[in-house]
Amino acid sequence: MKLTFQKAALLNGINIVLKAVPSKTTMPILECILIDASTDVIKLTGNDMELGIETKVEGNILEKGKIALDAKLFSEITRKLSDGDSMVTIESDEKYNTTITCDNSVFRIQGKDGDEFSYLPYIEKNKYICLSQFTLKELIRQTIFSISVNDSNKMMTGELFEVNGDSLRVVSLDGHRMAIRKILLKDTYENTKVIVPGKTLNEISKILTGDNEKEVQIYFGANHILFEFDDTIVVSRLIEGEYFKVDQMLSSDYATKISVNKKEFLDCIERASILIRENDKKPIILNIEESKMALKLNSSFGTMNAEILIHKTGQDLMIGFNPKFLIDALRIIDDENVTLYMMNPKSPCFIKDEEETYIYLILPVNFNAAAV
Amino acid sequence: MKLTFQKAALLNGINIVLKAVPSKTTMPILECILIDASTDVIKLTGNDMELGIETKVEGNILEKGKIALDAKLFSEITRKLSDGDSMVTIESDEKYNTTITCDNSVFRIQGKDGDEFSYLPYIEKNKYICLSQFTLKELIRQTIFSISVNDSNKMMTGELFEVNGDSLRVVSLDGHRMAIRKILLKDTYENTKVIVPGKTLNEISKILTGDNEKEVQIYFGANHILFEFDDTIVVSRLIEGEYFKVDQMLSSDYATKISVNKKEFLDCIERASILIRENDKKPIILNIEESKMALKLNSSFGTMNAEILIHKTGQDLMIGFNPKFLIDALRIIDDENVTLYMMNPKSPCFIKDEEETYIYLILPVNFNAAAV
Repeated sequence: MKLTFQKAALLNGINIVLKAVPSKTTMPILECILIDASTDVIKLTGNDMELGIETKVEGNILEKGKIALDAKLFSEITRKLSDGDSMVTIESDEKYNTTITCDNSVFRIQGKDGDEFSYLPYIEKNKYICLSQFTLKELIRQTIFSISVNDSNKMMTGELFEVNGDSLRVVSLDGHRMAIRKILLKDTYENTKVIVPGKTLNEISKILTGDNEKEVQIYFGANHILFEFDDTIVVSRLIEGEYFKVDQMLSSDYATKISVNKKEFLDCIERASILIRENDKKPIILNIEESKMALKLNSSFGTMNAEILIHKTGQDLMIGFNPKFLIDALRIIDDENVTLYMMNPKSPCFIKDEEETYIYLILPVNFNAAAV
Repeated sequence: MKLTFQKAALLNGINIVLKAVPSKTTMPILECILIDASTDVIKLTGNDMELGIETKVEGNILEKGKIALDAKLFSEITRKLSDGDSMVTIESDEKYNTTITCDNSVFRIQGKDGDEFSYLPYIEKNKYICLSQFTLKELIRQTIFSISVNDSNKMMTGELFEVNGDSLRVVSLDGHRMAIRKILLKDTYENTKVIVPGKTLNEISKILTGDNEKEVQIYFGANHILFEFDDTIVVSRLIEGEYFKVDQMLSSDYATKISVNKKEFLDCIERASILIRENDKKPIILNIEESKMALKLNSSFGTMNAEILIHKTGQDLMIGFNPKFLIDALRIIDDENVTLYMMNPKSPCFIKDEEETYIYLILPVNFNAAAV
């Protein structure tokens, strides 16, 4: 095999597929990036058997072939080669000895047989939807924080993607809170419901350019999901099983509704969090009165008190939350003002906009009212 | 005690003295920052008994007094308070209960008796020198990398500051290499020789603005050194003992002299380092011939070969180095071309400019010439 590339194009391709190369694996071949130039195009592939990424790279095929190269070494060598305009030549012989040449430097490393590499699974392209890269990236950013990092309930480590005619709903929850984003699609598609691993979404969101003009095709297979955009395809296993009954957790009843400046609210809670060390479960207590809300946090390090002006409808209320959950939700809301709907100190609080394009549900925590 | 500050001024002062607050200590009072407003100025102090920093902060003294506050908590609270223009009020009572107020937020934390805090040692201001903040910062940057990180020889963890009339020489060495920087001072001063701990120099270099117009006074006491600049003083213990005989290690003899483009040389060595993992002691071998130098590195991961054009005087030479030592020295040299002076494969290599404002000595390493 003998190929030439512009360094910048090669590096870009490597950076994309690197997201699917496992850092630890029992199958050494998976620590490699596959360079496949056995046809008329050059494709790079990374695959950890859960998540696989393949991307086309522009280059010249002087001699067809394929080779698997240690991903870490290959990416570091390419990164350190001369400037972006330089040409890189990759050449390998029948014993997989590989030479990488650029300007005045020549690297010789040992490659592996490309045929040993695991191909990406085939996915039928029947069921699909189409949306912009920007929208998908935003959907992920605005929900991913409330998946569970704990593996004990596999379902909670993924996100529900639910297509219903021309609407897509994305849901994540971890047992203490839930994030929901709903968008309208440009077309009507076949209804579908899948659970996508959080890791896949995290990696995809790093590769997406976030361009509003560029589209992503998402194909739904029986056990896999396939994302296709630019010159790249990302294939991931789905999480099997029936997702939680989301609609049963929602409610539009409330006894107290407040509207508050988002930045001011977020700043206050972040400030109060200084008094909490990790694993320290101190709630922030909101005391909602006529036109103001008092915030209080009490820990072994000290006390913080603050007061914010609000618009209130309904009853006065004193309610406590894990400050981290409020911070996570408020950070990703772009609105200037947010509205909170609450029933009582034991029922979930909903942060949502009027059109319900986003709904964040947060369970309150108990606190000793007498000590406040 | 009751004081008011502009947030930005207070935060700036905290960030300066924080550099001297130990992260671990057996004396809890040293984990604090002392606020001393017992006179007409407000001073903040951090002190780990080796290194002490004191800085003046502008503010209003509504009630004189002093208090020691947990450094981490105090700095985090101040950092998270509203914008830089906001006024911060710090008030403490006779039981050291302290209230920090800014806009709509009030923090209450427990302080400690300021009198328990250790004052900075007094240093007589007889012997001193004066140079610009920029120059001191550069001197440190260009030598600090070759102190020893290993504590087994205390002397090697510091730098020699040697005043000789109107010249200042700064030297660091770790047993494998040595860095020397020499500058001319604007005046003539009393001769002196001290060893300053590397930690002190690292911290000072973070506080110095690097301004060419602003000066630093350096005072030399019997056991301490004092740096005075802006509104800040930094006091550090000196390392006791006689420094190594630097001049005996220097030599102006050479058999081979080469001049090479610095960036090209550095890039090549950095690239070759990809093939080395930590603790892997593979040398980079330079094969110097008439008008070119071949570089070669061989490891279990692969081989790199490169070739660079050079200007050579004297004999051909094959010599091996720890690539890290070459990289460290070349990275901080600002010249476009560097000159290397070598005697043979066993004698030190000198990288220096004609005026010897900098001299970097690097010991070569053995290699198996037959395997090259």
